[in-house]
Amino acid sequence: MNIPQTNKKRIVIIGGGFAGIALAKKLRNKNVQVVLIDKHNYHTFQPLLYQVATGGLEAGSIAYPIRKVIQGYKDFYFRLTSVKEIDTVNQKIISEIGDLYYDYLVIATGSKTNYFGNKEIERNSMSMKTIPQSLNIRSLILENFEQAVLTKDVTESNALINFVLVGAGPTGVELAGALAEMKKAILQKDYPDLDISKMQINLVQSDDRVLSTMSEKSSQAAEKFLLELGVKIWKNVRVTNYDGRTITTDSNLTFETATVIWTAGVQGAVVFGLPASSLVDRVARIRVNQFNQVKGFENVFAIGDIASMETDKFPNGHPMMAQPAMQQGRLLGDNLIQLMSGKKMKPFEYNDKGSMATIGRNLAVVDLPHYHFNGVFAWFVWMFVHLISLIGFKNKAVVFLNWAYNYVRFDREGRLIIRPYKKKSFITFTSDEV
Amino acid sequence: MNIPQTNKKRIVIIGGGFAGIALAKKLRNKNVQVVLIDKHNYHTFQPLLYQVATGGLEAGSIAYPIRKVIQGYKDFYFRLTSVKEIDTVNQKIISEIGDLYYDYLVIATGSKTNYFGNKEIERNSMSMKTIPQSLNIRSLILENFEQAVLTKDVTESNALINFVLVGAGPTGVELAGALAEMKKAILQKDYPDLDISKMQINLVQSDDRVLSTMSEKSSQAAEKFLLELGVKIWKNVRVTNYDGRTITTDSNLTFETATVIWTAGVQGAVVFGLPASSLVDRVARIRVNQFNQVKGFENVFAIGDIASMETDKFPNGHPMMAQPAMQQGRLLGDNLIQLMSGKKMKPFEYNDKGSMATIGRNLAVVDLPHYHFNGVFAWFVWMFVHLISLIGFKNKAVVFLNWAYNYVRFDREGRLIIRPYKKKSFITFTSDEV
Repeated sequence: MNIPQTNKKRIVIIGGGFAGIALAKKLRNKNVQVVLIDKHNYHTFQPLLYQVATGGLEAGSIAYPIRKVIQGYKDFYFRLTSVKEIDTVNQKIISEIGDLYYDYLVIATGSKTNYFGNKEIERNSMSMKTIPQSLNIRSLILENFEQAVLTKDVTESNALINFVLVGAGPTGVELAGALAEMKKAILQKDYPDLDISKMQINLVQSDDRVLSTMSEKSSQAAEKFLLELGVKIWKNVRVTNYDGRTITTDSNLTFETATVIWTAGVQGAVVFGLPASSLVDRVARIRVNQFNQVKGFENVFAIGDIASMETDKFPNGHPMMAQPAMQQGRLLGDNLIQLMSGKKMKPFEYNDKGSMATIGRNLAVVDLPHYHFNGVFAWFVWMFVHLISLIGFKNKAVVFLNWAYNYVRFDREGRLIIRPYKKKSFITFTSDEV
Repeated sequence: MNIPQTNKKRIVIIGGGFAGIALAKKLRNKNVQVVLIDKHNYHTFQPLLYQVATGGLEAGSIAYPIRKVIQGYKDFYFRLTSVKEIDTVNQKIISEIGDLYYDYLVIATGSKTNYFGNKEIERNSMSMKTIPQSLNIRSLILENFEQAVLTKDVTESNALINFVLVGAGPTGVELAGALAEMKKAILQKDYPDLDISKMQINLVQSDDRVLSTMSEKSSQAAEKFLLELGVKIWKNVRVTNYDGRTITTDSNLTFETATVIWTAGVQGAVVFGLPASSLVDRVARIRVNQFNQVKGFENVFAIGDIASMETDKFPNGHPMMAQPAMQQGRLLGDNLIQLMSGKKMKPFEYNDKGSMATIGRNLAVVDLPHYHFNGVFAWFVWMFVHLISLIGFKNKAVVFLNWAYNYVRFDREGRLIIRPYKKKSFITFTSDEV
């Protein structure tokens, strides 16, 4: 990997998400050598991926070059690669671009979509955990519409503009709302030769309410908002299969659709090489103690979505969200310095600042620890919090400008199929000479 | 193609570039049926592609959804497809999504990169005529740097950060300048473990001056600016081959490089089916008369880059640039209406408003018909003209904001490898355990 050997301790961080970046910032100029590794050369602001998928924002606005984050940090190295395996016996990682020894290893690989072992659903449906995946969804939505205008077969064209979202967590709800707004404000105008009333947005959920991790009040408000926007909500329904055309469920309900977006589950993005005992089986997270130390290791840590710290308050680990990830990253930064100087580490305690989701224009729900509210004010709070959380002044400014424009003009201009998402055509073409 | 048959005349336009869009706008609500066909669902503002390639702008800022351009236009249809062939005998086009009869056909397919028949150069070098191509260049530049930090072999790493641009027209010159600014302002900071002084930008040109279509004064100014920025200019040199590693030329000069960007020639992007006699051989443009009618046809037209209208002033046709394309599109809009009502068409006359190129920060050259100037003021003129020429308020605002930010901060944040440009790795990795 061409990293110089020095007499400083080397900390290797795998992953430049919320947790990894928060940790890296804490380790700035701290008399250690830091190697940050990621598959991408940018940090992704995942909470806004759904806006990239639905044309509200450009990908570049919610991504930030990792090298720019660590610009000027002494003894910091970034490497763009995938880690193939961890070798804890020899204290090294094995990557596509060579091996690297570590003194301290921090696993911050985040999470990936969980299809619960159903390979057919995995093959045929879309997931939305990365920017390329969001851009694929954007392309597919538009490609479906472009195909729908070509056919006189109503069954086909209806399936092409039937969007089924599986999972009604924040991602599913936000996507559903955004699609509903696209339908009303854009697709209707862009495709005048199509009966847009046939466009369906189906939100399918195995739980008995949407946003089941939020308050009852927020769930109810979100459902009301979604229904007003024309989203069909199906509760207590579990999707059993999707063959690329038909969704089957554990009830009589089926859907004919060209597009399934799967947001029904996440699991840890585990790297190979850890002993099985350190893994939490259900969603493949890594078991850590209150210092984020991986079970059985002194110098291997896991933070963020990949880490499962079982506490009294969170018996299944913390929610897989940005807040706990950033807080763990920051604390570990301090703790590593403590550890290296032989001092005591501080146990992690999650400071839950609340959670929120936006459904559409003027419509959001916010749960603060002791207060829940929704509507226009919640929507402004949502926007404000997301704006200030973006890294970098320019991204903030460009996102603000886009949102202001989209709000005033009821528009989303990011409807460009830059890289077609190749999927076999849903319809076949005949030489219908007209 | 599922286009309704009406009693209106059908005009089919192939291509949504400057010419096609200008024509479409003129045909708005004109009692004709218009079908606009393009391979992409967006219009590309090609003069700023080089800024996408060098991270100064996001792709979405210089593209505009074609469906939005024609939103609300009566009897307008957009179809996303490639035209495979024209059948002038049966007056129809044959596309990937079916056939379509026309009453009037307008070919506005633009131009593509001309490798002058050298397949090996074509296979190994990059071109920059479309947004995906620009994004590939962006990815490749950054991937090269990410690879260069990995190797201790100086020959390899030097080749990885040696950028050779072939052709010193506006595109080559603007790219060279932008790369030179990236080197100084960004790459030096982003890659502290690399000897950035080894990064080379070589501009190779078979002519005896850069910007050879502009005034002598502008050429000289541009060369001075480029040299100041550290670009190496090679004049009177013709590239003979590039095997993916070594460039050979008709002189002793050779380059070892991982990146060749070929801007040395363009040719018409011809569709099949026209009689050979209507083609201009040298660069495959279509021969048209002064009404942009294709030689031998009453109802088939060609406009923009693809059209070659040989006049006394322009014996080889007009320059392949946005201005003549837009002017021809607009005039043809009027002329088609005239033609359909049996009235006389107006011959085309190019109103040359001048040309310009930017080299870098505060550095541009402008040729007006009777006045040439360069430097800071020229640079502001360049920015102003390009800003107002972008379609859409939001694109203008976002581009302005980006430019202001980049200017103040000496930065370009679009350095994200969103879609890796797959090329076989230049260097091989050993398990160099450090």
